Amino acid sequence: MTTAVSPLAPAQFPDMPPIEGVRLATAAAGIRYAGRTDVLLAVFDPGTTVAGVFTRSKCPSAPVDWCRARLKGGSARALVVNSGNANAFTGKSGREATKLTAEITAMAVGCKPAEVFLASTGVIGEPLDAAKFDTVMDQLTASAETGAWHEAAKAIMTTDTFPKGAAAMARLGGTAVTICGIAKGAGMIAPDMATMLSFVFTDAAVAPKVLQALLKQGVADTFNAVTIDGDTSTSDTLMAFATGAAARRGVPAIASMSDPRLPAFRKAFDAVLANLAEQVARDGEGARKLVEIIVEGATSKSSARRIALSIANSPLVKTAIAGEDANWGRVVMAVGKAGERADRDKLSIWFGGIRVAHKGERDPAYNETEVSAAMKKPEITLKVALGLGRGRDRVLTCDLTKEYVAINGDYRS
Amino acid sequence: MTTAVSPLAPAQFPDMPPIEGVRLATAAAGIRYAGRTDVLLAVFDPGTTVAGVFTRSKCPSAPVDWCRARLKGGSARALVVNSGNANAFTGKSGREATKLTAEITAMAVGCKPAEVFLASTGVIGEPLDAAKFDTVMDQLTASAETGAWHEAAKAIMTTDTFPKGAAAMARLGGTAVTICGIAKGAGMIAPDMATMLSFVFTDAAVAPKVLQALLKQGVADTFNAVTIDGDTSTSDTLMAFATGAAARRGVPAIASMSDPRLPAFRKAFDAVLANLAEQVARDGEGARKLVEIIVEGATSKSSARRIALSIANSPLVKTAIAGEDANWGRVVMAVGKAGERADRDKLSIWFGGIRVAHKGERDPAYNETEVSAAMKKPEITLKVALGLGRGRDRVLTCDLTKEYVAINGDYRS
Repeated sequence: MTTAVSPLAPAQFPDMPPIEGVRLATAAAGIRYAGRTDVLLAVFDPGTTVAGVFTRSKCPSAPVDWCRARLKGGSARALVVNSGNANAFTGKSGREATKLTAEITAMAVGCKPAEVFLASTGVIGEPLDAAKFDTVMDQLTASAETGAWHEAAKAIMTTDTFPKGAAAMARLGGTAVTICGIAKGAGMIAPDMATMLSFVFTDAAVAPKVLQALLKQGVADTFNAVTIDGDTSTSDTLMAFATGAAARRGVPAIASMSDPRLPAFRKAFDAVLANLAEQVARDGEGARKLVEIIVEGATSKSSARRIALSIANSPLVKTAIAGEDANWGRVVMAVGKAGERADRDKLSIWFGGIRVAHKGERDPAYNETEVSAAMKKPEITLKVALGLGRGRDRVLTCDLTKEYVAINGDYRS
Repeated sequence: MTTAVSPLAPAQFPDMPPIEGVRLATAAAGIRYAGRTDVLLAVFDPGTTVAGVFTRSKCPSAPVDWCRARLKGGSARALVVNSGNANAFTGKSGREATKLTAEITAMAVGCKPAEVFLASTGVIGEPLDAAKFDTVMDQLTASAETGAWHEAAKAIMTTDTFPKGAAAMARLGGTAVTICGIAKGAGMIAPDMATMLSFVFTDAAVAPKVLQALLKQGVADTFNAVTIDGDTSTSDTLMAFATGAAARRGVPAIASMSDPRLPAFRKAFDAVLANLAEQVARDGEGARKLVEIIVEGATSKSSARRIALSIANSPLVKTAIAGEDANWGRVVMAVGKAGERADRDKLSIWFGGIRVAHKGERDPAYNETEVSAAMKKPEITLKVALGLGRGRDRVLTCDLTKEYVAINGDYRS
């Protein structure tokens, strides 16, 4: 199993400002790993609103169930995230572990258990010992401080090869507010799977309903437009927390979706989601190429999405890209199997901006040397034009390498 | 790229009797390969009926279009199959190549072009030079003989590691009829994809409508229940030819689906399809394990099928099996992402007959040593019980190995 940082990683962790009303602490609770942090506590000032979107898996983890049930309260005082154990498929003991973790945290932070949100990533099917949180909770609450983003992003990693963070500013009524987010991506610990966790924080005052709408709309073209291997985790969690601390600096609260200040905030919010989602693709297990797939000329955006995902999840397309082969025949195959409207004789395909197939045949002008050079780059755009309508969409993925098989197959649990 | 025979291959090519009314010949037309045969001609006696099922790809190959359009005639006098070039995504020249091939064959055999059926497998997007068939057609028609199954199965291989054949007998009105079939499986030639071709022949007299119904029903639980990598070819073709020669031995013709002799014939027919389909799974690219996935207790058979395919196509499940790891957490994930009804707390999972998870938790009685031994076997059954209803289904797949990535990524086209 590799421990080298992905060649697609950003040069460094970004400079992320503190968010007023969010204090962060990490600890090593020894849940599974030795010699590293594995628990993140985020403490929120009173008045913090919360929103969340979760895995569509029919077999979600216990923390996903816990968060879904508490979201309607709309308010959050703490977030506890652990790596090393997903608390998924753990039955009654899993439900009890979430309850106990929330109670331990509520006691330490001074809030109700229903204001504590939870996420876990790691092994599936192993009971999670909530008592481990008890042993580090005093240390966590005592050391929580604003701005510890880098440490926070590191504590939630599993087999991620780099910590993922992103920040953006927006002006609301003439005053700046900040949005910071962290994420973890494709990780594997036996027996485990790629779990995506991400948490976004802002000092803007945003009503829970608005925050939920922003998150639901924002995720569609960011995290939901990324695929590593088509395998959906039981634990996928994306949550947003708005402390409202900026209100004390005169920033008006956003209470409705028709607020004229919302577009500026949404733009910054979506930028953070998109940045984090791209980092997840850049850290796909075994990834050596970041692949942007653009489908245009489809009958609708949703049709374009399904075709783009069919291409992005095709093992034959992904292995061809790993082999630096502009194998457009496999792209035709993936378009054909998507089940969406497509007309073979109108189809055109580009790799790295070079058209290789046009109107259902090999492009006669296609220069193999040029295409070979494009395929050697670490970032490749694959575009398909269907010639049917105006539907367009974009997804991000990575290549499928022997390293992916090694990471996920070269061991016994 | 490996050239070793799959460790899951049958010990030898089966003993297959001739079918009266079917004569076979192969030739090396130099379509792409050197030093091997790449064209199969099957010549049928007048009166032979035909049926076919084809890829559901929206971008089918030119031969698939050709066959679909000619099936309604119901009668066949010849079948021409070539390997090395799929004649897919070849536009107008592809359509012309199918027409010319049929005309060349019709002239040599003495029939109408519409009675000639075609299939091609190999490179996508390369024009197919139909003149190459012309150069070998005299040799093919002159040498065609009954019973040359082994040579026929070899001529249609691409990166298959062994030729695939199966035979069965049935008694119709007290007299034996024979069913023989050949298939090719997961093959790769740059730029290509796994194409499945299979042809089944019988001397029974079967009306085209009945043959079509048998094929459509038979394929559902055989070829359509096999997946190597979830990538559907543009060229998948399964055809059946019934010469009716057995009628001369007094075997009654089957003209309707309510014929009381049909069940015996169907049983033998389905056995040939199932046998060939299993051989395709055994020769999946890079396969080292044959995996049978059984899903029971689903709300319906189709729901069980979708869950079984979600498991069978999951890269994380397939790499775990390659790693001989009974990673039931990934099975839970694949059940959860299938989009079908599932209740985490009722789910049980078996590997090789050993229950590893029960009612939503790790089975406390689960013995790791026993399971490890089961996972080392070349054939593994993975069973999931959902506990919801009576829906049951079964699919076959193989593991995902580094060899799969090597076969499909370690080259430049």
